[in-house]
Amino acid sequence: MTDTPAAFTEQDHAARMARAARDAAAAGLTGLLVTPGPDLLWLCGYRPTAVTERLTLLVLALDAEPRLLVPVLERPDAEAAPGAGALRISAWRDGQDPYAAAAGLLRPHGHYGVSDSTWALHLLGLQEALPLTTYRPLTVALPMLRAVKDEHELARLAAAGAAADAAYEEILSVRFAGRRERDVAADLDRLLREHGHSQVDFTLVGSGPNGADPHHDAGERTIGDGDMVVLDFGGLREGYGSDTTRTVHVGEPSKEERAVHDLVRSAQQAAFEAVRPGVTCQEIDRVARAVIADAGYGAYFVHRTGHGIGVTTHEPPYLVEGEEQPLVPGMCFSIEPGIYLPGRFGVRIEDIVTCTEHGGRRLNNTPHEMAIVS
Amino acid sequence: MTDTPAAFTEQDHAARMARAARDAAAAGLTGLLVTPGPDLLWLCGYRPTAVTERLTLLVLALDAEPRLLVPVLERPDAEAAPGAGALRISAWRDGQDPYAAAAGLLRPHGHYGVSDSTWALHLLGLQEALPLTTYRPLTVALPMLRAVKDEHELARLAAAGAAADAAYEEILSVRFAGRRERDVAADLDRLLREHGHSQVDFTLVGSGPNGADPHHDAGERTIGDGDMVVLDFGGLREGYGSDTTRTVHVGEPSKEERAVHDLVRSAQQAAFEAVRPGVTCQEIDRVARAVIADAGYGAYFVHRTGHGIGVTTHEPPYLVEGEEQPLVPGMCFSIEPGIYLPGRFGVRIEDIVTCTEHGGRRLNNTPHEMAIVS
Repeated sequence: MTDTPAAFTEQDHAARMARAARDAAAAGLTGLLVTPGPDLLWLCGYRPTAVTERLTLLVLALDAEPRLLVPVLERPDAEAAPGAGALRISAWRDGQDPYAAAAGLLRPHGHYGVSDSTWALHLLGLQEALPLTTYRPLTVALPMLRAVKDEHELARLAAAGAAADAAYEEILSVRFAGRRERDVAADLDRLLREHGHSQVDFTLVGSGPNGADPHHDAGERTIGDGDMVVLDFGGLREGYGSDTTRTVHVGEPSKEERAVHDLVRSAQQAAFEAVRPGVTCQEIDRVARAVIADAGYGAYFVHRTGHGIGVTTHEPPYLVEGEEQPLVPGMCFSIEPGIYLPGRFGVRIEDIVTCTEHGGRRLNNTPHEMAIVS
Repeated sequence: MTDTPAAFTEQDHAARMARAARDAAAAGLTGLLVTPGPDLLWLCGYRPTAVTERLTLLVLALDAEPRLLVPVLERPDAEAAPGAGALRISAWRDGQDPYAAAAGLLRPHGHYGVSDSTWALHLLGLQEALPLTTYRPLTVALPMLRAVKDEHELARLAAAGAAADAAYEEILSVRFAGRRERDVAADLDRLLREHGHSQVDFTLVGSGPNGADPHHDAGERTIGDGDMVVLDFGGLREGYGSDTTRTVHVGEPSKEERAVHDLVRSAQQAAFEAVRPGVTCQEIDRVARAVIADAGYGAYFVHRTGHGIGVTTHEPPYLVEGEEQPLVPGMCFSIEPGIYLPGRFGVRIEDIVTCTEHGGRRLNNTPHEMAIVS
């Protein structure tokens, strides 16, 4: 699991760009506009040193060569990107109008998909340069563009998951009681990197009442004996994401703590067992939510059940009420129900799961039983 | 210089938000819409754990209470922000439409300034929910909102600059020859953190021909004897930025290398001496460019002369042809001319400078002479 996978080639990127242009046309779009971020990296392999106010724009359209517009400063880096050979690169200089340059690559009445994280600065610049163009967010227009992973991507996600599992197993033997949340978070960060992560996106440590805030980061609170502690951590390994949550306890839990933990575990398991091709995303959410609601804790499960993962740690498909997208083999997503009792404690259990022809397969495989730490 | 400054208070943030709303009204805007990023942090002190597809939105308008809309998950973190007491916070839940919730806080025919880095996903969502609203990027509508620093901000920027100076002085004694660029970059990262940086944004190390690519990051190339090496590094200390460039040489430089370095140094000095209130940003660029062009190297100075700095390492004012904004006391910006000879080497010298009533004052103060490293 820890071998370095072969790098994606120019052909891989060319194929992704060609498919994206086809999917865009099939969705009624003139083409796709992609600025720096995960979509750009996935499509052409290019990641600028920084995302700044300077416009970098990939333009994809059916039956047209992919075009990449970059600030002249970035040209050497762009030309060194893995997919550069499949691109026609042009550059603009400081003092020139980048939106006029971009407009030359677009159709004046075009209807484009635009990457979600494109800056408003750039979108408004394009809207002003070409007032008759219209736009849709990429995840609205083509939510499933990156959702179905190929075997090389699955291998990377599995390796990232295995690395997160190894980090979790090692964190169980560190000292919790008497140390601050941020100290345990620093341990998790170090362990993820030791297990091959090049980037750590989050190491949430929510102890005692802080665990009842699902997005509590990791703070100054000193963890005490008797605390429930939510550990939610992940990042990128070889360009693909990990994201795992386990909830541990310092010393012996109370009967109620154990009951809530068991309930979340049942909800996670039920949702996992519901995964199969054709089931909708919202159905997975409903299955998890029903287990928790039936036990009277529905009001304390305040977030959706999961999100996709790939070259980011947060992407479509979203497992949420209203999302009618059916699961497709190769999709990878988190299943992470939780219960949050304000002022008291929280419990969340999260695995990354991939949909196969035969049902779900977990990419995290550490035990779900509540671990007792010291 | 290394004491921890007093934290900004609720009153500081309330005053910033009130001024922003007044400036917006004076600029003909209904109000300002601000999503996570430096503007949000500066205005109300709130920085979510991550910037995601979930909408977080600050709405400022004259004669109205500042409103912050957050995903319910973020509510506890938002309520703990330094400026939270000056905000009315509301929350939306997964499954609800955040743009409908935001629309309830906006005027249907309003004309809003929107933070530059607001995701297209969110801007398009607002444009769809309220089709008659119009938008301008914040740095276009109010480019100088954060540009003039108060004394507390200046003290932080000076401390960040002093820390970068200390890192530079120490890097001169590390080994360059025989090590990879990325190893020296890792040294710079460590030194910046040792000198109090909480975040390192870039540690560019461009040796030999790589120095001729102004945005070359730091790669696998082994630095050799006789190489010119561009070192450009910075990040945030106590929430405010550093950004410094010095160009060093491994062993004795050639006559041409010395001449190019002297030229860049003269251009940097001339631009610095041109700083005074009322001089336009483009004039500073012209002064630097003229020195280089007069010596016949104009085609090799391929970027603007500088950019502002504050809670980010890249912000208005931009020292670029076409920017007619006059300098105002309290503005802080880089002055960083360079010459890039493709395939051969590059030279850049960069200081952060603040405009005072009496002219420029440097916030970086290490020598500009070409340092010889080993």
